[in-house]
Amino acid sequence: MKKLWGGRFSKQPEEWVDEFGASISFDQQLASQDLKGSLAHAKMLYECNIIDESAYKNIKNGLLALVQEEKAGKLSYSVKYEDIHLNLEKLLTDKIGPDGGKLHTARSRNDQVATDFHLFVKEESLHIIDHIEELQKSLLNLAEEHVETIIPGYTHLQRAQPVSFAHHLLAYFWMLERDKERMQDSLKRTDIMPLGAGALAGTTFDINRNITMNELGFSNKYLNSLDAVSDRDFAIECCSNASMIMMHLSRFCEELILWSSEEFGFIEISDSFTTGSSMMPQKKNPDMAELIRGKSGRVYGSLMSLLTLMKGLPLAYNKDMQEDKEPVFDTVKTVKGCLSIMTGMMNEIKMNADKMNKAVHQDFSNATELADYLAKKGIPFREAHELVGQMVLHCIHKDCYLLDISLEEYQEWCPLVENDLFVALSPKTAVERRNSEGGTGFDAVLKQIDAAKSKMYVSKN
Amino acid sequence: MKKLWGGRFSKQPEEWVDEFGASISFDQQLASQDLKGSLAHAKMLYECNIIDESAYKNIKNGLLALVQEEKAGKLSYSVKYEDIHLNLEKLLTDKIGPDGGKLHTARSRNDQVATDFHLFVKEESLHIIDHIEELQKSLLNLAEEHVETIIPGYTHLQRAQPVSFAHHLLAYFWMLERDKERMQDSLKRTDIMPLGAGALAGTTFDINRNITMNELGFSNKYLNSLDAVSDRDFAIECCSNASMIMMHLSRFCEELILWSSEEFGFIEISDSFTTGSSMMPQKKNPDMAELIRGKSGRVYGSLMSLLTLMKGLPLAYNKDMQEDKEPVFDTVKTVKGCLSIMTGMMNEIKMNADKMNKAVHQDFSNATELADYLAKKGIPFREAHELVGQMVLHCIHKDCYLLDISLEEYQEWCPLVENDLFVALSPKTAVERRNSEGGTGFDAVLKQIDAAKSKMYVSKN
Amino acid sequence: MKKLWGGRFSKQPEEWVDEFGASISFDQQLASQDLKGSLAHAKMLYECNIIDESAYKNIKNGLLALVQEEKAGKLSYSVKYEDIHLNLEKLLTDKIGPDGGKLHTARSRNDQVATDFHLFVKEESLHIIDHIEELQKSLLNLAEEHVETIIPGYTHLQRAQPVSFAHHLLAYFWMLERDKERMQDSLKRTDIMPLGAGALAGTTFDINRNITMNELGFSNKYLNSLDAVSDRDFAIECCSNASMIMMHLSRFCEELILWSSEEFGFIEISDSFTTGSSMMPQKKNPDMAELIRGKSGRVYGSLMSLLTLMKGLPLAYNKDMQEDKEPVFDTVKTVKGCLSIMTGMMNEIKMNADKMNKAVHQDFSNATELADYLAKKGIPFREAHELVGQMVLHCIHKDCYLLDISLEEYQEWCPLVENDLFVALSPKTAVERRNSEGGTGFDAVLKQIDAAKSKMYVSKN
Amino acid sequence: MKKLWGGRFSKQPEEWVDEFGASISFDQQLASQDLKGSLAHAKMLYECNIIDESAYKNIKNGLLALVQEEKAGKLSYSVKYEDIHLNLEKLLTDKIGPDGGKLHTARSRNDQVATDFHLFVKEESLHIIDHIEELQKSLLNLAEEHVETIIPGYTHLQRAQPVSFAHHLLAYFWMLERDKERMQDSLKRTDIMPLGAGALAGTTFDINRNITMNELGFSNKYLNSLDAVSDRDFAIECCSNASMIMMHLSRFCEELILWSSEEFGFIEISDSFTTGSSMMPQKKNPDMAELIRGKSGRVYGSLMSLLTLMKGLPLAYNKDMQEDKEPVFDTVKTVKGCLSIMTGMMNEIKMNADKMNKAVHQDFSNATELADYLAKKGIPFREAHELVGQMVLHCIHKDCYLLDISLEEYQEWCPLVENDLFVALSPKTAVERRNSEGGTGFDAVLKQIDAAKSKMYVSKN
Repeated sequence: MKKLWGGRFSKQPEEWVDEFGASISFDQQLASQDLKGSLAHAKMLYECNIIDESAYKNIKNGLLALVQEEKAGKLSYSVKYEDIHLNLEKLLTDKIGPDGGKLHTARSRNDQVATDFHLFVKEESLHIIDHIEELQKSLLNLAEEHVETIIPGYTHLQRAQPVSFAHHLLAYFWMLERDKERMQDSLKRTDIMPLGAGALAGTTFDINRNITMNELGFSNKYLNSLDAVSDRDFAIECCSNASMIMMHLSRFCEELILWSSEEFGFIEISDSFTTGSSMMPQKKNPDMAELIRGKSGRVYGSLMSLLTLMKGLPLAYNKDMQEDKEPVFDTVKTVKGCLSIMTGMMNEIKMNADKMNKAVHQDFSNATELADYLAKKGIPFREAHELVGQMVLHCIHKDCYLLDISLEEYQEWCPLVENDLFVALSPKTAVERRNSEGGTGFDAVLKQIDAAKSKMYVSKN
Repeated sequence: MKKLWGGRFSKQPEEWVDEFGASISFDQQLASQDLKGSLAHAKMLYECNIIDESAYKNIKNGLLALVQEEKAGKLSYSVKYEDIHLNLEKLLTDKIGPDGGKLHTARSRNDQVATDFHLFVKEESLHIIDHIEELQKSLLNLAEEHVETIIPGYTHLQRAQPVSFAHHLLAYFWMLERDKERMQDSLKRTDIMPLGAGALAGTTFDINRNITMNELGFSNKYLNSLDAVSDRDFAIECCSNASMIMMHLSRFCEELILWSSEEFGFIEISDSFTTGSSMMPQKKNPDMAELIRGKSGRVYGSLMSLLTLMKGLPLAYNKDMQEDKEPVFDTVKTVKGCLSIMTGMMNEIKMNADKMNKAVHQDFSNATELADYLAKKGIPFREAHELVGQMVLHCIHKDCYLLDISLEEYQEWCPLVENDLFVALSPKTAVERRNSEGGTGFDAVLKQIDAAKSKMYVSKN
Repeated sequence: MKKLWGGRFSKQPEEWVDEFGASISFDQQLASQDLKGSLAHAKMLYECNIIDESAYKNIKNGLLALVQEEKAGKLSYSVKYEDIHLNLEKLLTDKIGPDGGKLHTARSRNDQVATDFHLFVKEESLHIIDHIEELQKSLLNLAEEHVETIIPGYTHLQRAQPVSFAHHLLAYFWMLERDKERMQDSLKRTDIMPLGAGALAGTTFDINRNITMNELGFSNKYLNSLDAVSDRDFAIECCSNASMIMMHLSRFCEELILWSSEEFGFIEISDSFTTGSSMMPQKKNPDMAELIRGKSGRVYGSLMSLLTLMKGLPLAYNKDMQEDKEPVFDTVKTVKGCLSIMTGMMNEIKMNADKMNKAVHQDFSNATELADYLAKKGIPFREAHELVGQMVLHCIHKDCYLLDISLEEYQEWCPLVENDLFVALSPKTAVERRNSEGGTGFDAVLKQIDAAKSKMYVSKN
Repeated sequence: MKKLWGGRFSKQPEEWVDEFGASISFDQQLASQDLKGSLAHAKMLYECNIIDESAYKNIKNGLLALVQEEKAGKLSYSVKYEDIHLNLEKLLTDKIGPDGGKLHTARSRNDQVATDFHLFVKEESLHIIDHIEELQKSLLNLAEEHVETIIPGYTHLQRAQPVSFAHHLLAYFWMLERDKERMQDSLKRTDIMPLGAGALAGTTFDINRNITMNELGFSNKYLNSLDAVSDRDFAIECCSNASMIMMHLSRFCEELILWSSEEFGFIEISDSFTTGSSMMPQKKNPDMAELIRGKSGRVYGSLMSLLTLMKGLPLAYNKDMQEDKEPVFDTVKTVKGCLSIMTGMMNEIKMNADKMNKAVHQDFSNATELADYLAKKGIPFREAHELVGQMVLHCIHKDCYLLDISLEEYQEWCPLVENDLFVALSPKTAVERRNSEGGTGFDAVLKQIDAAKSKMYVSKN
């Protein structure tokens, strides 16, 4: 090779080009899946009389030894053999001799890599589901403790209506429930075996794909070999589902960050998840919540990478598709990490009941309750509405809230008012009255908790 | 309002700000859903004794009249009333008087807009599924005609192995099948009713959400009011599914464009979907295929818009969320259009059998077959492999292909070769031998067609 | 054409396909640019003796008449003529007869559309720069009023150090300054004329591109005809710059929303830009700020659309590229709108000095000042640091702040403390002492304002 | 810390949370920049009398020793010290004792990390510019060799007009020229020093930022401390510019892949950049071109990550921003790699003149030339046009091209035709006649090469 690009590289051009093209630096993460796939394939070849017993035993023992070494972290790979598949083939042949070569009968790197990747995404999707459930349990526990804890409910980041803190937490429970369902749905399109598709057209060998399918625990197999080697939907779908999870977590983290500010002051995140300063011991930067919020960008980016990658690619396999793995590896790691950290944070979070209580008493969200009260006393709704507007303005000028006005003053303003008004205006009343299905009323929330529990139970069975 | 931004606008600032904030220019697409939702809500209010019969009848008749006017395109909206919900409320009140105001009892714009949007995305998801099935049928018909039509199968855009044209078409059938399944899955998370969630906390009225749910044909209802008004997962999921569809279509269109080039020349797209030139009557620009390929960008962009939009938004409703509709409207329209155009193109496509046949005879993809042939004659595989390499090189120097070598020449090179070699080397043999499950062999493809048909049938029932 | 897709369309298939392929619905926004381009092209054709004087005069008068009609909104277009270029050609020919056809000499739709689009993006980039400057002026005015207004400076949304409000506002001034510079830089790559490139290869006519370049006010011309018709960098760059602007505005809006909350309460956004409730007159939803924050998604999405669109397109023109315009049209409109609304909001914003003042007194950000004070009195830094930590903890237990501790108490704790401590601990002192270049000290801020002013002045000349 | 997430981790929760929050695994790439920054800062502290000579010498020597150890790859870092800044501080203090702590005077991690990152992006932007120029030179060399080599020019992937191969190559030269200009422009906004901004508000120490600015080779410094620590525009701009480069390369690679196919067969990519098969020695998969095309997705994704990351972040520093580095690190590495590989490929590319020549003779792109010929002979243009259409159809029926028709046949069809027609119809004539500025005519291309050369020369000085 001629001198290529001006000699600013210490490596030889050939070496450098090899490195650029090789995937072993990242696809070694598929080692265990690749070995698993090879074991199943060898068994099938033997049972279909494509290789003989001696070759099979030799291959099997070699692969099992590699499985042990891989677990022990003893395998080492080389850029020279490009990817994990060729590296393991080389290691096997070094170990057992020429029989190693027979393993590649009726198989191509195209269906092999697709199979490994399916196995990986399937396993990791299940792990993500587990992590989601851990966080859901944590939220459910916290919700059960806080049915009657009241915080302001916001729209437009303006206090709109006090709500049960449990109710607020459960909103995230349901988001996560959808995240879980999405993962379960995409699993159906992940849990399909490409093995047997060969390079693109199937094989002339009389293979039996049901054997490998059962051996590898796949529920289905691709029915079209071109599709089998060129489909990456399952990877994109995994990243799309992950983006949705991260979007939900970014919303939750935004709230945790707000609630941790001096201005809100509703919660205290445990020291384990914050950083501080020795001189300002009160200062607790909600680092982990911020980091998770930020990591939404990373996961969105990976989704976009994969969609761009696959745009306009003709069938069947193209080398571009080697770029499919890193975004998925990074996404899966990020999502599991974020879910774990969230669970940890929720398990140790402390509520500042005083601040929450003060907040729900310092707004005019009970203006609606006052109007309802007057309406019940017989004042036409439109008139009640107008009266309330005047009273709120009056409070603003006095720099106080509706509950700070005395009974006398209320009665001057409207003689129908009685002492029961103050109960009607209390945040607690406002919350507990909203008992419509799915509402924030305490009874409604208790029912919601039951529904959430049975959902978790049912989805497990 | 003071002069704001230098007077380069012909409109008054107030007017201009109103326009910036209003959504009526696009959310008027939700008119029919909004009226449907109001009819159901009114019925529920009446059945729960929240409004009386006279008010109900009045409201119902008013709404039914608006439904007719809307269908006839007779309604006109104003920026003054911001959005479709307030515009229709105003039109109703103008028509039936103060009873119109009662319709908003126990409902807020937050749960109303979410309900309308759910209804819209649900309807459109079903339409998209229909459009997918039309294209699948078209592909299936074409595949049935072309089981034994052979084209080169490519990897790296290099001819790798001849395949049945039906097999190639069916690869897209299965991609579309996954697209359909994804739409069906996301429908489960779209087909949930938010109505009854109020502004964010539920309502104090004794409503019955089962009535509205049944009336509107929803399968489920949100169990948490905060979640109900702040969830936009279903919209994002719709755009994510649409992105996958567009990715698949972009791959197909890339192939149609390649196949339409003078260099490939495999197909001819009907005049209806191409543009030409009067002076160059042979020229057929595959405009529609290019346009569809390009429109993948538009749909990916909408997905990214929605994900960005929702990142880091605290609960519950925020005005940012008004930006949720246009990307979905545009996506749904684009995807339906592209699927229809694809169906039309496939229905009228013409194969150039000569060119395809020439192509599969002009490559060395049958080198594998030659090696297999020698192996069967008893030559050890490794040696056969080496011999074949030499013969291919020989052909390249002679500027011919393996089938162009005479029997004599073959026998000089290797005495074991007999006349049956030429059958073994023919592309047709190469295809029909790959009869492993999901492979391109003719029998395998016929089985695949059966599987595809029963899939379509089953998924309908 | 056969029945294509199941007859669920009211339109004829042909009509529908035409509509799908046509761009007139959106590219009519290029009408004025197209007419301008044609006027210049006609003049050049005449001056180069490619058309004669009579044809030129005829064409020129026809085009000038169309310019007037276009301004008056009197032109109407048809899907039948696909795009704005063919529509205007048809309108011209209807008006002036066969001479109209001569206008297309030595020009192709490919270089024509590229020229129109360059003119459009150039004009709009200049408009965006104007809008940026309006907002910068508004910020500068506000900053001049608020040099000594103090608000908490945040890191991690935790109060970290009080700062001059002017300083905070000026941070956005400099972001916008970079936004402006980016627009000016991308203008260099927009202000290039493609006209004369023909369909892709130039022309055989003896044209003079300097004439059209000068006539159209372009600073440069493409030197390669293939590049001229296939380059869309300028459109992508416009959207990338716009994304950065929206990112900056989304940050500013996030702050405005936070500051408008009951919890922060630092500012009041004018009624013109908020929505409220008659019954809760104190409630002001910062709708416009939220909407702008949300619109960042839309602009990011358009950038991603264009990048996806252009990925992997071979030279030269491909129909995919018809999809280049809508994202740019939408982006330009959105960015101008958001900048205008921001300017309006800043012009009418009200500061709540009380709340800001309370906030800067209610934190421990002056702990650093206390340590500095002790250090100056001769206490080794490490020891001072430790002492301060103890005192802060003491305050937390007493539920007070450092300025609430009496001199006596301080002296018990450390006898070196004198009365001057209280000045040292005041937020104002903390701010004014940070006079390093670019710091928040009042003198430093005044210098910064001078620098900002001269930047604005210089960038104008 | 309580048990957090179910004990499926081998690490202790504390350890695991630390790892999640730490950045040392990736920001160690900033080691050399961090040491450089510290050296400059120490010098400034000394020159401003903030630290004494002995401390300065001690610090300086310690840092210089670390610089040597870093170059030799001898430094090792720990998650315990979170990031590269604290790790190096710890290593310094271990080496030189308490003086190490003085280095942090008048500096915060916020301005330190921003400074390091600016230095990194600046250096790498310059490297990318160098890589662009290497590829430009390679293209220019190739273009000079191929001014009169003719290939089909395409629109819609249909042969439209033959062009000079040099002209085609130069189209990419100009794209790269814009890429370079963009990098130079963004450098202006990268080459700005944040140091001296402190945590967010500047410092009370009497520092001199001109000293550090000159020492570090920055051209400018931030004039607002809040902006200095919270600006990440330069990182986003780097990724946006990189996305454009990758978009251009993806187009070029698409063409290389097409041209390498059996169907086109225009070029042969060197063995160094392709993979083959021992049995099919003619097969050359254009792996590197495919990989580069695919890597566009990765870079687009990183851009999207950063834009998402920064959306809606309030001032000043937030922990989210720790996520800013990995996308930039990956992008810079990817872009440099892709540019190098492209250069290598172009340096060794082989043209298949036969195939190109055959291609330009086998189309009707010379129909325009025929019409021009007839027009010159005096036939009205519209009539000529019609005649040509008939002749092309005639050829199609005869399965031949315009140059295959005999003079006699032409004269029967139109008596004005003479023997000079065949020159007029030759692809070479078609190319060389298009000598308008920027056109594909040989003279025009030679001028273009001169312009390209002087552009490269000028941009260097």
